[in-house]
Amino acid sequence: MLDRVLLATANPKKAQEIIRLLSSSGIEVILPDRSLQVEEGGCSFLENAYLKARAYWERYGIPTLADDSGLVVPSLEGYPGVFSSRFYQIEWGGREEVTETEDEANIRKLLRLMEGKEDRRAYFVAYVVLYAGDWGVWTEGRCWGSITTERRGNRGFGYDPVFVPEGDHRTMAELSPEEKDSVSHRGKALRKLLHILKYFTYG
Amino acid sequence: MLDRVLLATANPKKAQEIIRLLSSSGIEVILPDRSLQVEEGGCSFLENAYLKARAYWERYGIPTLADDSGLVVPSLEGYPGVFSSRFYQIEWGGREEVTETEDEANIRKLLRLMEGKEDRRAYFVAYVVLYAGDWGVWTEGRCWGSITTERRGNRGFGYDPVFVPEGDHRTMAELSPEEKDSVSHRGKALRKLLHILKYFTYG
Repeated sequence: MLDRVLLATANPKKAQEIIRLLSSSGIEVILPDRSLQVEEGGCSFLENAYLKARAYWERYGIPTLADDSGLVVPSLEGYPGVFSSRFYQIEWGGREEVTETEDEANIRKLLRLMEGKEDRRAYFVAYVVLYAGDWGVWTEGRCWGSITTERRGNRGFGYDPVFVPEGDHRTMAELSPEEKDSVSHRGKALRKLLHILKYFTYG
Repeated sequence: MLDRVLLATANPKKAQEIIRLLSSSGIEVILPDRSLQVEEGGCSFLENAYLKARAYWERYGIPTLADDSGLVVPSLEGYPGVFSSRFYQIEWGGREEVTETEDEANIRKLLRLMEGKEDRRAYFVAYVVLYAGDWGVWTEGRCWGSITTERRGNRGFGYDPVFVPEGDHRTMAELSPEEKDSVSHRGKALRKLLHILKYFTYG
């Protein structure tokens, strides 16, 4: 029933991860020939993923996979949360200039706000949505860990260099791609989705 | 895989419809022993249905079915929309007093705002969510029609007395339960959901 999906993302590193995670599923992953400007106006990860997937579905008419994910820090009232990818530019906690990359500015703000915090627990969360017009499936994946006091590692993207997953001592950016996939929020969410889709495809 | 669902609704007429629509599915419908106060703070039908289902899931730990639905009128900028059940009390378009029932006040406001409108097209839309913790399925159902100039019929609930579904001349409130189910937004959404769940249950 489902032999191909369109990937609704303009983030090449996220696309790379998702393609890697789906590589053994038999589902063909199609990348859009251009990226759509979708306002992430939703008030939640699920809503944002849904809005992205819907926008691409409406243009291409192919079942569409979208991911919305972020970092949730309880001692920062849940921030960066849905603002994870543009944390540096929001009012809350004060803005940061982009001097190198947006990721760098986001991390700089996070580390500044975490200075002196005892409770450094945090989790990454991913909502993956498969949108097929008048129906859809979503899955959620979480990865608990803690925020370091400085950057370590150069793999991955986003907040990976300052996040140590539970049960490890290395940051997410120090893990191999296979190690990251096995513990990451995105890996967990996509494995759940594949498990569900198996029923549609071969059920 | 799925032999029972909890119904996340405090609206007995909605519960009655959903039980009727699921009656031949083999899925046992469980009603909660008390209704939870869930703030419908979502910015969309999907988000509201999701929030309701999640709240009941968190209390009961049983896969939960929730519906959020409403009436969308293009010539009223999409209102009542997500405010359908409490349209009478929102600022937009002016408030109405409840003299009999909330349904009556909502309809009175709608008919007042539709006075003199040429374009009386509208649609009912239902988002049905099945929430099972870290995954879920949703389906959407729509029923296009038009708004009458006065109430007719005493079946159904909500805006049924002033909504004539396309291809009919009677209002939704003049249809038999079976006729309503066959054309209604909720009927369409639930049949799609059952079709999907068959794969989980017997797939």
